[in-house]
Amino acid sequence: MSADNQAASFVHGGNVHAWARERGGALAGVLDFSANINPLGLAGSVREAITQSVSQVIHYPDVEAVTLKAAISSYYDVDVEHITAGNGAVELLYVLTHTLRPKRVLIPAPAFSEYERAATAAGAEIEYAFLSPENNFAFDVSSLCSRLNGVDMVFIGNPNNPTGTLLTVRQLERLLFAAKKAGIMVIVDESFMDFIIGDREYTCRPLLKQYDNLVILHSLTKFYAIPGLRLGFALTHRDLTAKLHAAKDPWNVNSLAQAAGVAALTDKEYQQKSREIVNHEKNILYASLKALPGVHPFPPSVNYILINTRQTSYSAAHLRQTLAERNILIRDCSNYPGLSPYYIRVAVKLNEQNKILLERLEQVLR
Amino acid sequence: MSADNQAASFVHGGNVHAWARERGGALAGVLDFSANINPLGLAGSVREAITQSVSQVIHYPDVEAVTLKAAISSYYDVDVEHITAGNGAVELLYVLTHTLRPKRVLIPAPAFSEYERAATAAGAEIEYAFLSPENNFAFDVSSLCSRLNGVDMVFIGNPNNPTGTLLTVRQLERLLFAAKKAGIMVIVDESFMDFIIGDREYTCRPLLKQYDNLVILHSLTKFYAIPGLRLGFALTHRDLTAKLHAAKDPWNVNSLAQAAGVAALTDKEYQQKSREIVNHEKNILYASLKALPGVHPFPPSVNYILINTRQTSYSAAHLRQTLAERNILIRDCSNYPGLSPYYIRVAVKLNEQNKILLERLEQVLR
Repeated sequence: MSADNQAASFVHGGNVHAWARERGGALAGVLDFSANINPLGLAGSVREAITQSVSQVIHYPDVEAVTLKAAISSYYDVDVEHITAGNGAVELLYVLTHTLRPKRVLIPAPAFSEYERAATAAGAEIEYAFLSPENNFAFDVSSLCSRLNGVDMVFIGNPNNPTGTLLTVRQLERLLFAAKKAGIMVIVDESFMDFIIGDREYTCRPLLKQYDNLVILHSLTKFYAIPGLRLGFALTHRDLTAKLHAAKDPWNVNSLAQAAGVAALTDKEYQQKSREIVNHEKNILYASLKALPGVHPFPPSVNYILINTRQTSYSAAHLRQTLAERNILIRDCSNYPGLSPYYIRVAVKLNEQNKILLERLEQVLR
Repeated sequence: MSADNQAASFVHGGNVHAWARERGGALAGVLDFSANINPLGLAGSVREAITQSVSQVIHYPDVEAVTLKAAISSYYDVDVEHITAGNGAVELLYVLTHTLRPKRVLIPAPAFSEYERAATAAGAEIEYAFLSPENNFAFDVSSLCSRLNGVDMVFIGNPNNPTGTLLTVRQLERLLFAAKKAGIMVIVDESFMDFIIGDREYTCRPLLKQYDNLVILHSLTKFYAIPGLRLGFALTHRDLTAKLHAAKDPWNVNSLAQAAGVAALTDKEYQQKSREIVNHEKNILYASLKALPGVHPFPPSVNYILINTRQTSYSAAHLRQTLAERNILIRDCSNYPGLSPYYIRVAVKLNEQNKILLERLEQVLR
């Protein structure tokens, strides 16, 4: 398989570069609903931190990421010994699978495709736990617990991408407990948790000391709108933290990302405003989508909405193409295992932008 | 072993952050000879490319790194199918060892410590090929060929860090040929090759199509003074290129590094000036060091010089400490396998800076 084919089989949203190349042009005018990025964009404080740090790129990044880890520790209330900083959460996902080399992993379907790709890269076999649209793709913890036999790693997106489903920490602890007894690692991806207002009911962070089989992955690129800069972290038991540090490039987090992260995690105003606006707009967009003929959106929890288009005349690929011609990018979800060719995902953006999406959708579906 | 201990056992040069933390202060006034970074600093073109791209960090980086790979392909005269872009060359070193999982690797000693660390992280046993100071640490290809039995990967720094020794491509082809017959991978690290005036005699790039057991690692952070930004690439046979792409985080190279790399590779003026100045200053610094009592520098090839301090009263650790008190950072090389506690390495900087190093050294050694 060539590198290009390999890339093609794991197509993600947010590839505005490929979009621009197809059109031989720039990005101006396009509205990207295919990537789940905070629509408030770059915080002023973050932009300033980046700009101010440009002169510092002549030095190596801090290998210990001391200031960044202190900011993460303080904001998320976790000890530094649990933290591994990453070049995005996805880098650490690969470091994790390469380090632990699972033989057989259980992955909900649909889920973020990098779980499968990283597990496969490390030589694992994949077993899917299919989620049912009739049940709004909700996780059934009892059913997951019954599937642990013969598996050595389980992935859970919380909230799950692209379905938006969310488990409480109480529900997840049942899975962690059963998995711990059986010596199975549970990777909980909390990359969209920052969008939740009041995440205490959901995050597994308080369980870190108790469960050495728990790995929390957390991206900082979505909520702080810095996917191009790459920044994320893993939270693990201290023994695994040491293993991850030994298994990764020591300079993995670039200086600008470290500076941006510190600024981002202390910008309370941006954080609060982001959560409020995204939550508000999410509800409006969900209600408006429901009102469109044939469009079936699933209840969202954060800044993206999964939609079944079966009752319209459009497959996801067709709708994506049709909207792209109207300068709107959406995520065609037909390459997700567990989804029919009739699923799309849209990000929640600002009110005016969401209105344009709704207008164009209405024109197309009319 | 805790994460901190793990980090401590592989201490590198260039850790100005730890230095500043020890002193509870900023970096102002310190001269860092411990990191081998181009003393010309950030090219104007590169600084502008970074600054202009800050607004673009709200988009994911180009996963295919199309523009960057085209620039690498054009500048180094290699087909795109050989190129994997990396978050620094060291990231790809880890991706490589995690992917190929060597059982036993042959590493020259002394050499860049990340070869050992990345191989160990993937579970390999280490075998050293000790280089001799009596022979100026020169590689003996015949001797290396005779050591291939039972090994599945060999590392060669060309030029080697910290010794500065350099092999011609003709010499290296003998090793590649013997290794290929035995099914052994040869990793040639050309991260300092850009500093060589006329690298055709030395680089293995023309051998890529012929040898599927050849991996060339190439950093762009040293020559272009962007270590904080992270940028490098691997050159491999197309099958291995596909494997490396499948085994790495798809978004590994941040947007600013991609933009910086494109600007850097087309800035002929900076490239020529850097090579001329560094080469000139290297010769002056080497001659001046030789003239200092008890100081024994080894013949340099690029922008760093290995020095034996045995004939002074200073161990490397003592000299490092003494110079640090005078705001000069040097690399204590005593943690390199194959070196006694009496080796230091200094980078070649600009004329005025090198003069200050020489003055302080003279004061200390008087």
